[in-house]
Amino acid sequence: MAPLPPDVLATLEGQGIELPSWAFGNSGTRFRVFGTPGTPRDPFEKIADAAQVHRYTALAPSVALHIPWDLVDDFGALRRHTEDLGVTLGTINSNTFQDEDYKFGALTHHDDRIRQKAIDHHYACIDVMHATGSRDLKIWLAEGSNYPGQNDLRARQDRLQDSLQQIYARLGDEQRLVLEYKFFEPAFYHTDVPDWGTSYAQVAALGERAMVCLDTGHHAPGTNIEFIVMQLLRLGKLGSFDFNSRFYADDDLIVGAADPFQLFRILFEVIRGGGLNNPDVAFMLDQCHNIENKIPGQIRSVLNVQEMTARALLVDHEALDAAQSANDVLGANAVLMDAFYTDARPALAQWRESRGLPADPMAAYAASGYQQRIAADRVGGTQAGWGA
Amino acid sequence: MAPLPPDVLATLEGQGIELPSWAFGNSGTRFRVFGTPGTPRDPFEKIADAAQVHRYTALAPSVALHIPWDLVDDFGALRRHTEDLGVTLGTINSNTFQDEDYKFGALTHHDDRIRQKAIDHHYACIDVMHATGSRDLKIWLAEGSNYPGQNDLRARQDRLQDSLQQIYARLGDEQRLVLEYKFFEPAFYHTDVPDWGTSYAQVAALGERAMVCLDTGHHAPGTNIEFIVMQLLRLGKLGSFDFNSRFYADDDLIVGAADPFQLFRILFEVIRGGGLNNPDVAFMLDQCHNIENKIPGQIRSVLNVQEMTARALLVDHEALDAAQSANDVLGANAVLMDAFYTDARPALAQWRESRGLPADPMAAYAASGYQQRIAADRVGGTQAGWGA
Amino acid sequence: MAPLPPDVLATLEGQGIELPSWAFGNSGTRFRVFGTPGTPRDPFEKIADAAQVHRYTALAPSVALHIPWDLVDDFGALRRHTEDLGVTLGTINSNTFQDEDYKFGALTHHDDRIRQKAIDHHYACIDVMHATGSRDLKIWLAEGSNYPGQNDLRARQDRLQDSLQQIYARLGDEQRLVLEYKFFEPAFYHTDVPDWGTSYAQVAALGERAMVCLDTGHHAPGTNIEFIVMQLLRLGKLGSFDFNSRFYADDDLIVGAADPFQLFRILFEVIRGGGLNNPDVAFMLDQCHNIENKIPGQIRSVLNVQEMTARALLVDHEALDAAQSANDVLGANAVLMDAFYTDARPALAQWRESRGLPADPMAAYAASGYQQRIAADRVGGTQAGWGA
Amino acid sequence: MAPLPPDVLATLEGQGIELPSWAFGNSGTRFRVFGTPGTPRDPFEKIADAAQVHRYTALAPSVALHIPWDLVDDFGALRRHTEDLGVTLGTINSNTFQDEDYKFGALTHHDDRIRQKAIDHHYACIDVMHATGSRDLKIWLAEGSNYPGQNDLRARQDRLQDSLQQIYARLGDEQRLVLEYKFFEPAFYHTDVPDWGTSYAQVAALGERAMVCLDTGHHAPGTNIEFIVMQLLRLGKLGSFDFNSRFYADDDLIVGAADPFQLFRILFEVIRGGGLNNPDVAFMLDQCHNIENKIPGQIRSVLNVQEMTARALLVDHEALDAAQSANDVLGANAVLMDAFYTDARPALAQWRESRGLPADPMAAYAASGYQQRIAADRVGGTQAGWGA
Repeated sequence: MAPLPPDVLATLEGQGIELPSWAFGNSGTRFRVFGTPGTPRDPFEKIADAAQVHRYTALAPSVALHIPWDLVDDFGALRRHTEDLGVTLGTINSNTFQDEDYKFGALTHHDDRIRQKAIDHHYACIDVMHATGSRDLKIWLAEGSNYPGQNDLRARQDRLQDSLQQIYARLGDEQRLVLEYKFFEPAFYHTDVPDWGTSYAQVAALGERAMVCLDTGHHAPGTNIEFIVMQLLRLGKLGSFDFNSRFYADDDLIVGAADPFQLFRILFEVIRGGGLNNPDVAFMLDQCHNIENKIPGQIRSVLNVQEMTARALLVDHEALDAAQSANDVLGANAVLMDAFYTDARPALAQWRESRGLPADPMAAYAASGYQQRIAADRVGGTQAGWGA
Repeated sequence: MAPLPPDVLATLEGQGIELPSWAFGNSGTRFRVFGTPGTPRDPFEKIADAAQVHRYTALAPSVALHIPWDLVDDFGALRRHTEDLGVTLGTINSNTFQDEDYKFGALTHHDDRIRQKAIDHHYACIDVMHATGSRDLKIWLAEGSNYPGQNDLRARQDRLQDSLQQIYARLGDEQRLVLEYKFFEPAFYHTDVPDWGTSYAQVAALGERAMVCLDTGHHAPGTNIEFIVMQLLRLGKLGSFDFNSRFYADDDLIVGAADPFQLFRILFEVIRGGGLNNPDVAFMLDQCHNIENKIPGQIRSVLNVQEMTARALLVDHEALDAAQSANDVLGANAVLMDAFYTDARPALAQWRESRGLPADPMAAYAASGYQQRIAADRVGGTQAGWGA
Repeated sequence: MAPLPPDVLATLEGQGIELPSWAFGNSGTRFRVFGTPGTPRDPFEKIADAAQVHRYTALAPSVALHIPWDLVDDFGALRRHTEDLGVTLGTINSNTFQDEDYKFGALTHHDDRIRQKAIDHHYACIDVMHATGSRDLKIWLAEGSNYPGQNDLRARQDRLQDSLQQIYARLGDEQRLVLEYKFFEPAFYHTDVPDWGTSYAQVAALGERAMVCLDTGHHAPGTNIEFIVMQLLRLGKLGSFDFNSRFYADDDLIVGAADPFQLFRILFEVIRGGGLNNPDVAFMLDQCHNIENKIPGQIRSVLNVQEMTARALLVDHEALDAAQSANDVLGANAVLMDAFYTDARPALAQWRESRGLPADPMAAYAASGYQQRIAADRVGGTQAGWGA
Repeated sequence: MAPLPPDVLATLEGQGIELPSWAFGNSGTRFRVFGTPGTPRDPFEKIADAAQVHRYTALAPSVALHIPWDLVDDFGALRRHTEDLGVTLGTINSNTFQDEDYKFGALTHHDDRIRQKAIDHHYACIDVMHATGSRDLKIWLAEGSNYPGQNDLRARQDRLQDSLQQIYARLGDEQRLVLEYKFFEPAFYHTDVPDWGTSYAQVAALGERAMVCLDTGHHAPGTNIEFIVMQLLRLGKLGSFDFNSRFYADDDLIVGAADPFQLFRILFEVIRGGGLNNPDVAFMLDQCHNIENKIPGQIRSVLNVQEMTARALLVDHEALDAAQSANDVLGANAVLMDAFYTDARPALAQWRESRGLPADPMAAYAASGYQQRIAADRVGGTQAGWGA
């Protein structure tokens, strides 16, 4: 294939996708969490693994932390460790779903003591943000109820707004609050922020530095996700992506694995709406590598985003506009499909080499011996996982 | 069963559910529209049938019209006909999905001529509203696209806002615009107003008299509809309901037929949020009686809403609050289920009789001979249906 | 309400619903398993709790075991303990999803060593069946893959058949194999037995004593479950039910909690197809009480099944046949709804009292002090849960 | 790109995809059927259009007819017309959903007169098959009910089997019966053949020449269709495909338009299971071109199938087996994705030219002037559509 156009390459050069520290720990389903040799045992080892992804791809310059999973005594030391490895610390994710007190809610809880505890947890997260230099506080609201009648949906919504206002008020001037929505799970009757509309209504009431986080796996079956991307960009409220893919529910598979064409369409709308390489829109992964190796799973993921971004950048907008204006349904669709079907991989490989990166990052990582090394070295201790 | 409490009866007495004129015409699927003897051949006959529903139930005091299906030369005459039959004319529904010009859009169309035509159609609807005394202009936006790339999602959204602003500006001071959303169909890739969030964002930008219409059949599989009811009431933007029920897509079955417990939960949230007998929240049916008789189909429907409203009014809020505050999941759920499982039908039958209504409206209608009469009388002419 | 007809009561008297031992242990989602005071720490305590359900309802005469979770040194002792408490041991459930060796499959695994280990596990389960006097070996096939290409779908299907044949051959003459299907989870791309068709094809190839298990939560969104009940009864292959309810995926909520009308329809088809009180069709629960108390959760569940069975038994089949034959859609539906809407609870309460049972089993259990007693007594040790 | 391997080309050369005559008539949703200039007015014109697809692609050698839509006085003349145009007549599709008598069922109807009428219709279809030389009688069972209780699910199933047996007995020795299943629509509560399991159970009871038809748009949300392909091939009962694509329900969009990767996976399983260029497995389209032009819509469709077949043929089975055997999840997935991501279009274009076909069939058709010619010529008369 011919090389990619210079403007496409320039755009791709600016792309960065944040990795979640928890992707390097063990994860699983409610039925079983399988272990793997070499799994990190602390945040320092997680970040070392994350830095490998950046090393082979130049695509993953930062790492998101999850509190309390990634609490350390000395965040200064963690920050230096991170920067020594050539990456930075990114978004801070709070956790309101694993403390026994949060069994029936946290930021929405009717018991003021528990609600204050959850707010205080976010204050502590903001403290961490100051130590790590993080901009974004991301709140995934896992709260909800399992049975009709169990809770007062409206009162919880009002308490949520009150809690968020208190947290928002504590943010520094350069910091943002990003509110994630999710269709269901872990709650099975109602979830307090189940859709983009609710997240939007909640953050719009907070202020300019409150934004929506769109996790690609958090929608009802059949939802047109790129439409939501378009709408949130239009409303100026798309704060970040959590990328992953799914066949059924929130499967948390590798982004692009289940439906590459959907990923392409999402990235096409990001580009059309000015969301690419726009500091207001953070790109992150949020995945679980339940059965595959974690580091190459993350490498595969950022490459998938890069490859689909490249294809989406190849769309001929002039031809597209012309076909759309002529109501040429097949013609307009063909312009899009032509870009999607173009195999950008050889050109990307060439370009990587020209920048001193391996043409095939998966193969380069596999050949590096890192996986064998950590499997041999990381013996003893407790493997990190969700909750550790 | 013991009689229903006086406050419940007082509330039920205030309940009114608007009927759609088109429910009395023939309808069907893309595969076939089956005919039935006695189907109305003009708006006057549709309203005569609708008045039967009110006669036996006192639940259906008004009839919604659809333009151009219900265009008549003399709306004054239609209004007098309607009032003579003891009912009134209600919401005016516009139609942007059946003109050849609207094949690729109407209020969202890139061609200014077509977009203006669609706006003008709404001006004409507002003229009808002045003639009929209607308050609400309801816009169901059937527009969208079938293939990725076919259209510019964002530009259509902006044009939609512009079109709606022009229509909104033309409304009288007491009139409202109500914007309906729908997950999919007739468009199969994207729909311009696919979810409540989009409808909310669009009407919030218009002004106070622009509201959201929630059709109970227009959601993705698994959507918690009562949550949306709660949220729109909380945001002050729930303008109206289109009631019906579904097992799969927008099946337009009789409300309550597919999942009576869901209808109960919706009505419970309406009550909890102050939406019952609140003039801001219009109750309407929007159904298709493809294979069952239409008049008894509508009688069954308003009775279903009444019966589930009665059950929802029986919820013991004090007990519910106590159980919720105690995190008593099973206890709180039991309070709700106890109301749902209570058979309010005998008490409602008694109460109907006490008001001079038939205890069993379905049986009374069947015994009236009306169905046989229209089957015999309405011979010749063209039966009304979607599009006629 | 008038008492229930004698034939309905006679039928209800014969009803028995098996409880799963694991419902009394802790359970949760992949995000968190919350603990509760009084949770059993061994199979003996689980059975003691299960016996409470039977004591207050006379509806739960047997308890299903899960191997290896319920392995004990002396199954004779467990059996005597069980019988002393007035219940019996029922179905034996195997487990092929929690051993490290089963990460990529068990009965379907390409590695003969692992596949033999999984077959041997079922031999061990059959040994337990002989010790407990159990008739049914239930196999839930949790196996599958997460990514396209990961596995050879066809080869796995063939190996599954081979494995099942070996297991089937080991069964005693009075024993049965029951194969459960599930739409997805824990695998997210393909599941080896995802639907009733696959389970049916697999067991039909085994022989007469191989049957299908229908778990009400294991279907795609929108699936008409009562149709499958009808079809499996028609084909003579409905071996057992796992009852629970769901709003989204395999939520494992209390049966009847999410959609009581669906439960009614399922039971109506069971009755119409001759599956009620038919020894060939086992009724079981399979639920997770993540946030509610477990013993009352199980009491609520068996009562829900009983109440909906009573309503389903009230259907006037003569009137239904007449309406169906007349193509009277609304009339036929009304016959069904009339039974569903009839509140059978007062009559059931009376009947319970006439049999020396508490009118309100939930209240009787709550008043018994058992919950407080186990919370006080069961301190120390490890609470049972999935995997323990 | 390098040319495709000779064995791949040889396989592709054998590929043929049957076109449905009805794809060339107008179609739409229940809301509107839009017209287009040049739409055929009789079966002869439909076949002329179908022949255009074959002319530019050499991929569509036969045309399926639908009775009664395609009834002509002289099938011998239609056959000669067809063969003169270089194509043949294929599958005969029956219609049990548009006669007024079939409002409540046809092959399942409780009224013997109507059921016999439906059976007789299939006898007439078999007569047509003898005249056209068709092998397959395809039955899409649109029958079902809209409300619980409306019908006796089990009795309908038994009557269906009886009806099918009578039809099957009438087939010639070289003829087959192919039974299609569909999740829902036009019925909204139950469908008599809703899933592959039901179709399989019905045809297995008929005999060897009764097979299942898999329409790719007829499944519940999230269904793994390639699994069903694998299973039906394994059971020897995959008789034919109806190809199309969908985002929501039975959208009947161009095959491959909604999820090209799914089409690739389906074709991969066809190949792995020996179903490609296997006379037992017929490839057909079943689509509705509601808004796009019909002839290029069909050209696009057969090209999509060809392109994805080419990609699926490129899978390196040796590498795949090796990765699968090593439990190398990412490696095995990468083998599949590598084939999917390979852009086979340039090589296919070259190969087309080498065979005397246009490199770009879409462009060649557009340049031919045929569309303008039929738009000018076919004025007057009634445009064909569903039902005409």
